[in-house]
Amino acid sequence: MTKLNIKNNEVAFYAVGGLGEIGKNMYCVQFQDEIIIIDCGVLFPEDDLLGVDYVIQNYDYLIENKDKIKGLFITHGHEDHIGGLPFFLQKVKVPIYAGPFAMSLIKGKLDEKHLLRDAELHEINEFDTVHFKKLWVSFFRTTHSIPDTLGVAVHTPQGTIVQTGDFKFDLTPVGNLPAPNFQQMAKLGEEGVLLLTSDSTNAERPEFTKSERWVDIHIRRIFERIKGRIIFASFASNVYRLREASDAAIKQGRKIAVFGRSMENAITAGQALGYLKIPEDSLIDPNEINSYPPEQVMIMCTGSQGEPMAALSRIANGTHRQISIQPGDTVVFSSNPIPGNTTSVNALINKLEEGGAEVIHGYVNNIHTSGHGGQIDEELMLRLMKPKFFAPVHGEYRMQKIHTKLAELTGVPRENSFILANGDVLALTKDTCRLADHIDSMGDVYIDGRDVDDAVGSPEIRERRLLSEEGVVTAIAVVDLKDFQIVAGPDIVSRGFVYMHESQELIKAANHEVFWAILNTFKNHKKVDRRAINRTIVSRLQRLLYERTGRRPVIIPMVTILNADAQSTTEDKPAASTKPARPRRNRNNRAKRQPAAAE
Amino acid sequence: MTKLNIKNNEVAFYAVGGLGEIGKNMYCVQFQDEIIIIDCGVLFPEDDLLGVDYVIQNYDYLIENKDKIKGLFITHGHEDHIGGLPFFLQKVKVPIYAGPFAMSLIKGKLDEKHLLRDAELHEINEFDTVHFKKLWVSFFRTTHSIPDTLGVAVHTPQGTIVQTGDFKFDLTPVGNLPAPNFQQMAKLGEEGVLLLTSDSTNAERPEFTKSERWVDIHIRRIFERIKGRIIFASFASNVYRLREASDAAIKQGRKIAVFGRSMENAITAGQALGYLKIPEDSLIDPNEINSYPPEQVMIMCTGSQGEPMAALSRIANGTHRQISIQPGDTVVFSSNPIPGNTTSVNALINKLEEGGAEVIHGYVNNIHTSGHGGQIDEELMLRLMKPKFFAPVHGEYRMQKIHTKLAELTGVPRENSFILANGDVLALTKDTCRLADHIDSMGDVYIDGRDVDDAVGSPEIRERRLLSEEGVVTAIAVVDLKDFQIVAGPDIVSRGFVYMHESQELIKAANHEVFWAILNTFKNHKKVDRRAINRTIVSRLQRLLYERTGRRPVIIPMVTILNADAQSTTEDKPAASTKPARPRRNRNNRAKRQPAAAE
Repeated sequence: MTKLNIKNNEVAFYAVGGLGEIGKNMYCVQFQDEIIIIDCGVLFPEDDLLGVDYVIQNYDYLIENKDKIKGLFITHGHEDHIGGLPFFLQKVKVPIYAGPFAMSLIKGKLDEKHLLRDAELHEINEFDTVHFKKLWVSFFRTTHSIPDTLGVAVHTPQGTIVQTGDFKFDLTPVGNLPAPNFQQMAKLGEEGVLLLTSDSTNAERPEFTKSERWVDIHIRRIFERIKGRIIFASFASNVYRLREASDAAIKQGRKIAVFGRSMENAITAGQALGYLKIPEDSLIDPNEINSYPPEQVMIMCTGSQGEPMAALSRIANGTHRQISIQPGDTVVFSSNPIPGNTTSVNALINKLEEGGAEVIHGYVNNIHTSGHGGQIDEELMLRLMKPKFFAPVHGEYRMQKIHTKLAELTGVPRENSFILANGDVLALTKDTCRLADHIDSMGDVYIDGRDVDDAVGSPEIRERRLLSEEGVVTAIAVVDLKDFQIVAGPDIVSRGFVYMHESQELIKAANHEVFWAILNTFKNHKKVDRRAINRTIVSRLQRLLYERTGRRPVIIPMVTILNADAQSTTEDKPAASTKPARPRRNRNNRAKRQPAAAE
Repeated sequence: MTKLNIKNNEVAFYAVGGLGEIGKNMYCVQFQDEIIIIDCGVLFPEDDLLGVDYVIQNYDYLIENKDKIKGLFITHGHEDHIGGLPFFLQKVKVPIYAGPFAMSLIKGKLDEKHLLRDAELHEINEFDTVHFKKLWVSFFRTTHSIPDTLGVAVHTPQGTIVQTGDFKFDLTPVGNLPAPNFQQMAKLGEEGVLLLTSDSTNAERPEFTKSERWVDIHIRRIFERIKGRIIFASFASNVYRLREASDAAIKQGRKIAVFGRSMENAITAGQALGYLKIPEDSLIDPNEINSYPPEQVMIMCTGSQGEPMAALSRIANGTHRQISIQPGDTVVFSSNPIPGNTTSVNALINKLEEGGAEVIHGYVNNIHTSGHGGQIDEELMLRLMKPKFFAPVHGEYRMQKIHTKLAELTGVPRENSFILANGDVLALTKDTCRLADHIDSMGDVYIDGRDVDDAVGSPEIRERRLLSEEGVVTAIAVVDLKDFQIVAGPDIVSRGFVYMHESQELIKAANHEVFWAILNTFKNHKKVDRRAINRTIVSRLQRLLYERTGRRPVIIPMVTILNADAQSTTEDKPAASTKPARPRRNRNNRAKRQPAAAE
C-alpha cells in the first residue's frame, strides 16, 4: 500500500487533480490516518482529445487509502469540481458535504446514475464546522459565477490549511445573493493560516474582476433597445446571470420560456433557494411562445459554448421542435467562448445571423464578466489570509508562477511559495514546509462514454491524436510457423494517409519492407514470436514512410500466425483504430492486459 | 452656551469641516460630556478666493465646549487634516494623538509657530487604544499617499463610530511600507459598526485605485530610458513616491540632490522612520550637482503643482540659485495637477520645455495614482465594516451622493444613509439614527496670512472676487455739512473697469449721479449721515453702470464729511481694496467692527 514519505507529525497537502491545468480539481489534506478531500471534478478535454468525453483523476492512491478518508467537501457546483463524483463514489464510499446550490446539482447528478440512494450527503452552510478525530473543517463564503461558493479551511494540529475554491470578490452581487464574507476570511488570517492554496485562473489579468452588478446594468441597457424576441444564452449554473436577464425581461413585460434541461434544473433550484424570483405567471411553456408577440418573449437557453446538442445550436440549425430563428430576433450570448470552443461558437453565430438574427456577445458588449478574480482579487485574498506558506492551485503552470509573484508582493517570501504538480506532496509543520514526496499514480484518466468503466488510457489518446493528424497504415500478413512461410499477404491498407492512395510505388515499397521484416525475424530469432515480428514491421515501415513522406502515421501490424507452439494463433485486436478502444476497467488494470499489437 | 439638541443617551456625530467640500476636515463624536475630535485641517482655496491663503473651520462651538474635548486624533499628515492645528491650538488646549509620520510633521509645524512647547502630543500606533471615561478610541491601518495613515474607531456606549480617514486599499505598497490591516477592519465589522463615515473623494471613479507598485514599475521603466539629468517633482509627503524614485535612481548609479524645504523635511522623517532607505553616500549637496555628469544626477524637488515659490518654478524661471534647465534634462511630474492648478502647471511645463527639457507627466505615463480609493475600494470598506448606518464624508455633495448609492449596493438600506453638511448633527442610539440638530456657527473662516488672527470674512472674499472680475469704481467727494456744500468733487476713479477709461461721457454721467446722490441726501434726510450718502451713491452708480455697460463693478464711495456733529470726519478705510484687508481677530469679532464703507 502506498504510504506518504512524510514524518508522523507532518500534515500533507497534495492534489489528485487541478494543478498545471484548469479542471478536475481534487485536493487533499492528510494528517496521520485522516484524509480530507476537497472537490472531485472532471476536465473537459479540448479538441485534441479525440472521442474523450471527460478526463478524471486517477483514484488509485485514494482507493488504497480509502479507510482514512473522512469527508469530501465541495466548494461549489461546477463540473470541474463535482463532475467526478459519480465516478469516485463507485470506488470509494465517503460522506459528501456541500452548500445548498451545489448539493441540489449533486443530487440530480447522482440520481441520474442511480447512486443517490447509497450516498451520504450533508448540506452545509458557511457557518457550520465539521469535526473529525484530529482534523476539523470550517468554511467561508466567497463569490463566483454560481451561487453558494465556499472556501474550505482544514484545521490541523499543525495549523490551518485553506483552499479558496474558485472565487472572485463580487462586492455588489445582484438581487439578494450574498456577498463574500470578509469577516470570516480576515478572522482566519488573524488566527493564522499555515498554508493558503488559492485559485490562479486569472493570475494573468492585472485587474479587479468586475461585479455581476456591472453586467446587470448593461443587460438592462441592451434589453431596452431590443424590440423583437430575445434569445438569451448563458451557462445554466450562472444563476446571477439568469437573475439579471429575467429581471430585465420582466421589467419589459416579457414572458420567459426556458429551453434546455440543465437550464430548467438551474432555474428550479434557483427559485427553490430564493436566488431567482421569477413570478409563476412570467414563465411560459415553450409551446406557447408563438401565441405572444415577439416583443413580449424572452427565451433563456443553454448552448452558449456552441455545444451541438444544446438548445441554441438546434434552434440555429432549424432542428428544434418549438422554435426557429426569425428576422428581428436578437440572440444575446452572455458568456465568452472557452478557448477550445471559439470555432464552434463562431460557426453558431454565423448560422444565427444567416437566419436573420442579430447577435450580441461577450466582453465587447459588457455582458460578461469572469467568475474568477484577477490579480487584485488574488492579492486581496492573500492579504486577508496572511498565510505563512502558499501554493497556487487551479491553474496552468504560468498562472501558478505569476500567482507566487503576487504572493511575494503581498508579503509571502518567495521561498515560502510552492508551485506544485498533481501528486506532489507538501509536508508541513507549524514552522516548516517542504516538498516531501510525489505520488506517481496521480495522472489523467480518460472517460470515453459516461461511466468510470469507460476509462481509456493515455497511450490510446496519443494514438487517436496521431490517427487524426497523420492517418493509419495497416500491414496484414498470415504466417505459418510450421514451414516458416508467409501464406497470405503482405497487404497494405491505409486510412487518412493520403500518400499511400497516391503512390502505387510507395505501396509496393511498403509491402517489400513488411515481407523482409517477417523473413528477417524468421532468420534472426531462434523462437519466432509475434511481438518480434510486429516490432520489426513497425520500425521498418516507420523509417520508410518518414523518409518518403516526412509523416509518421500510426502503423498497425495485423499478423496472423498459424501453427505456433505455445503461442496464440490469432492476434489481439489492435488498441489503436479509428473506432474508440473498448472500455477497460480503469487505467490501473491496463498493466495487466495483453500487450497491444502496435507496441 | 450652545448645547446640542439631542437626548442624553444619544451619541452625536458632526463635522466642523470636510462635508460638501474637499478640505479642512474636522469630525467630532460627542457623548454627553465627552467630545472626540478627528483631524483638524485647512482647505486650500481655489483661484477665486483672492488673497486668501487658507480656509479653516469656525471653532466657536468647540471653543464654547472646550472642557468636553478629550482628545484630537489625527488620521494622517496631509494639510487638509493637520493644517488647522496651529490655529486651533491657539484657541483650545487639547491632547493630540497621531501616528509616527504625521507626528513628525505636526512637530515641525508647531515648532515653526512656537506652539510646540505647550502642546500635549501622543504618538500612537495602529494597535493602541486610548480610553476616556465613557468613550474609547482604537485605530486601524489603511493606505494613502502618505505613510502611517490610520482610520479611527470611537467606541461609545451606543456602538462604534468609524471614521476611515483618507484611504485606498494598496495591496502592494512599495518597499517595506505596510499594507492595510484587513484583519482589524473586518474585526470591527464583525463586532458591529454603528456608523461608518468614509472617504468619498473618488466616489465618481468606477475603479479599484491602482497600487503604488504599479507606479513604481513605470518609474523604473521611464528612468531606464533617460540619459541626462532627472528632475523629479512630486508632493513631498508622498514618501512612497520618493522611495520609488530614489530606488530607481540609485539602481542607475545616480546621486540624489534634494531641493525645497518640505522635501528635505519629508526625506529626513522618512529616513528616520525607515520608510526611505537612501544610503548617505547617494545624497549630495545641491551645490555639488555640477561636479557630476548629467547621467549620474537626480534632483528631487517640490513644485509639481506649479507653486510659484517652489523649487521647480524657480528652476524653470532661471531664478534658482543652484541650477537651471539645460538641454538633455528630463523633468518628471509624478503627480496630477489639482483642478485649480492646471493653468499654472501647464505654464510651468511650457517654460521647462522652452528651456530644452523633456517633460513627462501624469496618468498618461502611468507615473501617478490617486491616494484615494475608487468605487471598488469604497465598496470594499463598506463590506469590511458592515455598518448599520452610513454617512459619506470627505467630499462634495455629488460624491457623497454616489457614495450612498454604493452603500446601498453593499447592503446599507437607503434610509440608513445620511448626506450631511458641516454643522449637521446626527444623533444615534444602538438602533436609531436621526438628523437631530444643526450647529449654525460651522462655516468658513478665511485666513489671509499665516495666523489665525489674519481671518477675513466671507463678504470680503465676495468683493475681492467682484474686484477681480468686474473692476472697481471709486467716487470721491468732500462734503461740508455746515452749509451743505460739496466742497470738492465728485470725482470718479476706476480700476479694472475698462468702460470708464473708454468713455468720457460715462464718467460725466457718473459724476452727475454722485452729485445728485449727495444733494438728494441733503434734501431727504433731516440728519445727514455718511451711510445714507454712501448708500445713495452706490445705488445710483450701480444702476447707471449696469444700464450702460451690463457690468456690476464694486463701487466705493469715498465721501469725506467736514463739520459733522457727532460724526467722524474721516471715512473708514474701505474693506474692499486690491490690497488684502487688515487682519481682524476672527470671524466672530467681525460683527463688532465698524460697518465698512461699501456696505
